[in-house]
Amino acid sequence: MFFEGSEKKIEVILADSSQKLRSFGQPFWADIVACANAEILSSVSNEFCDAYLLSESSLFVWDDRFVMLTCGTTTLADAVMSFIESVGEEAIGFASYQRKNEYLSHLQSSSFQDDLKKIRQTIAGNAYRIGHLDSHHHYMFSTKKPFIAPAADTTNELLMYHINGDAADYLRGMNQSAQGIRELLQLAELFPDFIVDDFLFEPFGYSINGIKGQEYFTIHITPQEKSSYVSLETNVNLSEHPVDIYARLLSSLNPGSWDVIGFNSAKNTDGFPAHLCLGSCSLATEQGYEVNFSHYQQLCHEVLIPEYL
Amino acid sequence: MFFEGSEKKIEVILADSSQKLRSFGQPFWADIVACANAEILSSVSNEFCDAYLLSESSLFVWDDRFVMLTCGTTTLADAVMSFIESVGEEAIGFASYQRKNEYLSHLQSSSFQDDLKKIRQTIAGNAYRIGHLDSHHHYMFSTKKPFIAPAADTTNELLMYHINGDAADYLRGMNQSAQGIRELLQLAELFPDFIVDDFLFEPFGYSINGIKGQEYFTIHITPQEKSSYVSLETNVNLSEHPVDIYARLLSSLNPGSWDVIGFNSAKNTDGFPAHLCLGSCSLATEQGYEVNFSHYQQLCHEVLIPEYL
Repeated sequence: MFFEGSEKKIEVILADSSQKLRSFGQPFWADIVACANAEILSSVSNEFCDAYLLSESSLFVWDDRFVMLTCGTTTLADAVMSFIESVGEEAIGFASYQRKNEYLSHLQSSSFQDDLKKIRQTIAGNAYRIGHLDSHHHYMFSTKKPFIAPAADTTNELLMYHINGDAADYLRGMNQSAQGIRELLQLAELFPDFIVDDFLFEPFGYSINGIKGQEYFTIHITPQEKSSYVSLETNVNLSEHPVDIYARLLSSLNPGSWDVIGFNSAKNTDGFPAHLCLGSCSLATEQGYEVNFSHYQQLCHEVLIPEYL
Repeated sequence: MFFEGSEKKIEVILADSSQKLRSFGQPFWADIVACANAEILSSVSNEFCDAYLLSESSLFVWDDRFVMLTCGTTTLADAVMSFIESVGEEAIGFASYQRKNEYLSHLQSSSFQDDLKKIRQTIAGNAYRIGHLDSHHHYMFSTKKPFIAPAADTTNELLMYHINGDAADYLRGMNQSAQGIRELLQLAELFPDFIVDDFLFEPFGYSINGIKGQEYFTIHITPQEKSSYVSLETNVNLSEHPVDIYARLLSSLNPGSWDVIGFNSAKNTDGFPAHLCLGSCSLATEQGYEVNFSHYQQLCHEVLIPEYL
């Protein structure tokens, strides 16, 4: 019943407006997604964005940029390579490739180092790891091109591990529904007026994409008890948002540990459960992204149960 | 410069005294060690025990039992299989196979699950993991045979990660010596009257075996800054020992985090630096071993430095 929930992620911004990514059409994106060993399940669109729900996570396409996240044992670096081959390296204004640490990294078809070697054959960039190898850590690659990120270009990632309690029990249960999960997580309140597209996997697992104007959010739930993982990613400006999204999700999902990664997003732990910050890291990239990573654990001492194999 | 310091470990106790393991001789043990892709560097002996220093860790052989630890990408499960083939499955009274979580598990030639599958083809046993997959954790297999461990059969393991400070600098420096390391760690005081055999690797890395009567200790140092690891294993009864071995080593090596694993050994954190216990686990095996695992981190918040790749 093991499933690797943690995601690999690519973000690409075009160098100029001579090409419009949305005009490439769904068949083009289906091919890119297929390179990662995933497929498109459904999509929603608004004036700015096409949001695709994938068999493994999500793809958001705007005219000038796209963000793709894939989990499991997908091969996202191959999708990256295929995209760059299609548009040409010179069309890329900025690209970043990110990889969260996996529960079972030895089951992956490549390491971040392997991915890096592949990507660097086509496009130059800096890469780094934040966080210790023997604890939560994240890998990032970003291109070296002369790109300056607008300060308002913010991304927020909340990655939750070992969820506990009523919500976790519901997500592992037989009687869940997509609507039930949306209500459980109070998503209509957290992301009011977003158009959403969601999918409940068998026997469990849940994905949702939401878009509203230029804003997006995506949540992916891998509830399996021994390796549970729930991720939220959004470009919503959290400091101006009427609801404290992180605090609400932490309260309902009650994870044993969680990571926060922010790009141009102020650190804010208001409303977090009693916690320890086990480590944190800040990094200013040449492109103007201020990256913050923090790894948290609940304050209570955890008595662990042996896992029989 | 990466080296995987964390060890795999096998302990075997014979079912009866019809065979004496020491009488098998060094060529036999060299073959067993070679199955793990390691080799014997040197040895010391006393009335009870032959202690071999290996290219990757250590082997201790008594007449009725042996303990072998190997680090790096060694294939200890193959050595286990070779030993069981040599003596016959019925000659085994008790065997346990243990594996610490690796920094880079994807570089290992097998997972614990792979090892388990191999070992279980020859000998039946229970296996379990203690500790979360996304944090420090340890795997253990032990045979199901009708063996009862004497209460005095104790093993103590102290595994230290991310060592810091003067001692760490010395261990990473160009001017270290085996004698300098013994003095740095005050080993003559921690283990008085032990016969020792040690080896300083190039460009760094250090191993020492010590024996005194039926007692043994072994310390292995992988000082590399990004993935440092120092392990101590000993069957010395810590509660009756005149010096607080754990507290001394933690004080001199100043690790960011450390694990303690005890078999029939009372938990005792006296003299530990200010710390958090991030998780702990107890387990009573059918053979009478009371196993305790605890994962500690220093109390201070750790500001991490990005690692450029």
